[in-house]
Amino acid sequence: MTAHLPTLADIGDATLTARLQHLIDHKTKPLGSLGRLEQLALRLGQILGTEEPRLEQPQMVVFAGDHGLAARGVSAYPSDVTWQMVENFLAGGAAVSVLARQHGLALTVVDCGVAKAFAPREAVPGQPRLLLRKVAPGTQDASQGPAMTAAQCAQALAHGVEVVRGLPGNVLLLGEMGIGNTSVASLLLARLAGVGLDECTGAGTGLDDAGIARKRAVLRQALEANAGAVAPLDALAALGGFEVATLVGAVLQAAAERRVIVVDGFITSAAVLVASRLQPLVLQRCVFAHRSGERGHAAMLGVMQVEPLLDLGLRLGEGSGAALAWPLLVSACAILREMASFASAGVAERA
Amino acid sequence: MTAHLPTLADIGDATLTARLQHLIDHKTKPLGSLGRLEQLALRLGQILGTEEPRLEQPQMVVFAGDHGLAARGVSAYPSDVTWQMVENFLAGGAAVSVLARQHGLALTVVDCGVAKAFAPREAVPGQPRLLLRKVAPGTQDASQGPAMTAAQCAQALAHGVEVVRGLPGNVLLLGEMGIGNTSVASLLLARLAGVGLDECTGAGTGLDDAGIARKRAVLRQALEANAGAVAPLDALAALGGFEVATLVGAVLQAAAERRVIVVDGFITSAAVLVASRLQPLVLQRCVFAHRSGERGHAAMLGVMQVEPLLDLGLRLGEGSGAALAWPLLVSACAILREMASFASAGVAERA
Repeated sequence: MTAHLPTLADIGDATLTARLQHLIDHKTKPLGSLGRLEQLALRLGQILGTEEPRLEQPQMVVFAGDHGLAARGVSAYPSDVTWQMVENFLAGGAAVSVLARQHGLALTVVDCGVAKAFAPREAVPGQPRLLLRKVAPGTQDASQGPAMTAAQCAQALAHGVEVVRGLPGNVLLLGEMGIGNTSVASLLLARLAGVGLDECTGAGTGLDDAGIARKRAVLRQALEANAGAVAPLDALAALGGFEVATLVGAVLQAAAERRVIVVDGFITSAAVLVASRLQPLVLQRCVFAHRSGERGHAAMLGVMQVEPLLDLGLRLGEGSGAALAWPLLVSACAILREMASFASAGVAERA
Repeated sequence: MTAHLPTLADIGDATLTARLQHLIDHKTKPLGSLGRLEQLALRLGQILGTEEPRLEQPQMVVFAGDHGLAARGVSAYPSDVTWQMVENFLAGGAAVSVLARQHGLALTVVDCGVAKAFAPREAVPGQPRLLLRKVAPGTQDASQGPAMTAAQCAQALAHGVEVVRGLPGNVLLLGEMGIGNTSVASLLLARLAGVGLDECTGAGTGLDDAGIARKRAVLRQALEANAGAVAPLDALAALGGFEVATLVGAVLQAAAERRVIVVDGFITSAAVLVASRLQPLVLQRCVFAHRSGERGHAAMLGVMQVEPLLDLGLRLGEGSGAALAWPLLVSACAILREMASFASAGVAERA
């Protein structure tokens, strides 16, 4: 399975990078004293290609789908919770709804493959909106064979590309919802990075130890049932969910457009892992919001050699961690644009 | 040396705590899945005594002072930088100015004992303002004897109480500025908690290894020159700075008024350490914003048995870390007030 992939430019332009670093180093503060915020400012300047980065019309997009694997008891919650939470996102009562409202993030929910059929609904300006991009009502049970066909996977990827093309702004915050999708992330981590299933698999929404053991056994079956699916897109089709495949398309498109991509937790990171195996330069456009409390995420971040901003034991998904980290991105840009230099403020440099 | 201390109520009211925990546990999310944010929501509800906490008119207050010790070469920057940075705060060009503006935090700078004399200036609504509460133009050199007299220390404490009494709102964010004041924080940690000077002493604004060795030698002299100053207020007077003593008064008053106290880095934490030795319940009102990159802060947080929100390698002070953590407090309150419950949203509970 192949796909037409956009070519990505390397954003590590030496001249701009040097100019950004000089600016940061001459702000009125001891050298390096804003720590990770300085690296973030540099990165945002690089992605947006300017010494005065501004984050415009930030878009929080929550990709939702259901999973055949869920019938195997890999989650503490029933699959119906996927559509119920979609309704909750749209009604404004979910964590990501509350946080998006707090920060002025436009919220879009994409039905990538939820089992239930949603009626189309009119978009109301300023309110969360629903996009219907359903490939099928849930994937097949990956423990018995491929979760989706190659054609379905390609369709989900194309949906992700098309959704991002239709969004304004220069920042994409990634979220997801899908009962059973920590299993997908664990499987992709195991298959694409060779991390052992024990290290990849956690409690998800709240399994006890016996539940985790059961989940691991099911995931082992899924790896065996799809033993030949080794290339990134083959693994995605065999093991993935529709929301994960749509996310992969969205990440590739956002990267090609040089948007800032704010990655949430374990599942959105799995989509970035797949995308980065297709286009390694994708990672230059990503800001990792947090290290999830979900087992497997730390290993996944390690595989990609990235450091997240927050470490708050979050394991909710939805994009909630991306929303919580969002103000740090705004701060990093503000520091770059608004802080005085030693010279402009008349402050003495070090002795 | 003694002081009239307000009596603090224990805010761990069992009924309210149980009600808050029940609310948090029935929000539409897996149990505990918002991690540290849930603990923060509980704490803010406890401090403000309500199930619907709202943070009102947040006040960022930056306490500034100079230090006799600075003449001994304990900092990479000259003492003049203290007043220059005060001007930078007021002009809007410093990190804390930029971040306070981003988050709508009212910014007040208090001259607690800066060497330079500031002319009084009229307050402009919506602009940073300067309060003149100078005890003296800098402390004495603590390596030769007490940094301040008992009367000066009492005056600084009283200033802190009075400044907080005059502030609106229910949240105080703590910041500080004073070339040489990481030395004060190191000394207070060593004296009050018995932590070895090596573990207490770091690079501050950017000393090299030889500079840190010199700083440690000077701090050792200061501990010896003030060997009898063991009780918290005696240690504060002997080792402390005017901005630290004013901070201690501010913390005690804010705690008595049951304001939320957002603690920044190493120096403001040192003030909270002193205050907590006088009134242990002070810690119930505190939210620790971040773990500083400055050596000594991790140990100081450990001594108080508190966990900070962020860990971004910040070591700037000014209140910059408190400002960066601020949106997390707003989020925690919003989660508590605005998120739907499983029942209200019609979402199934776990299987």
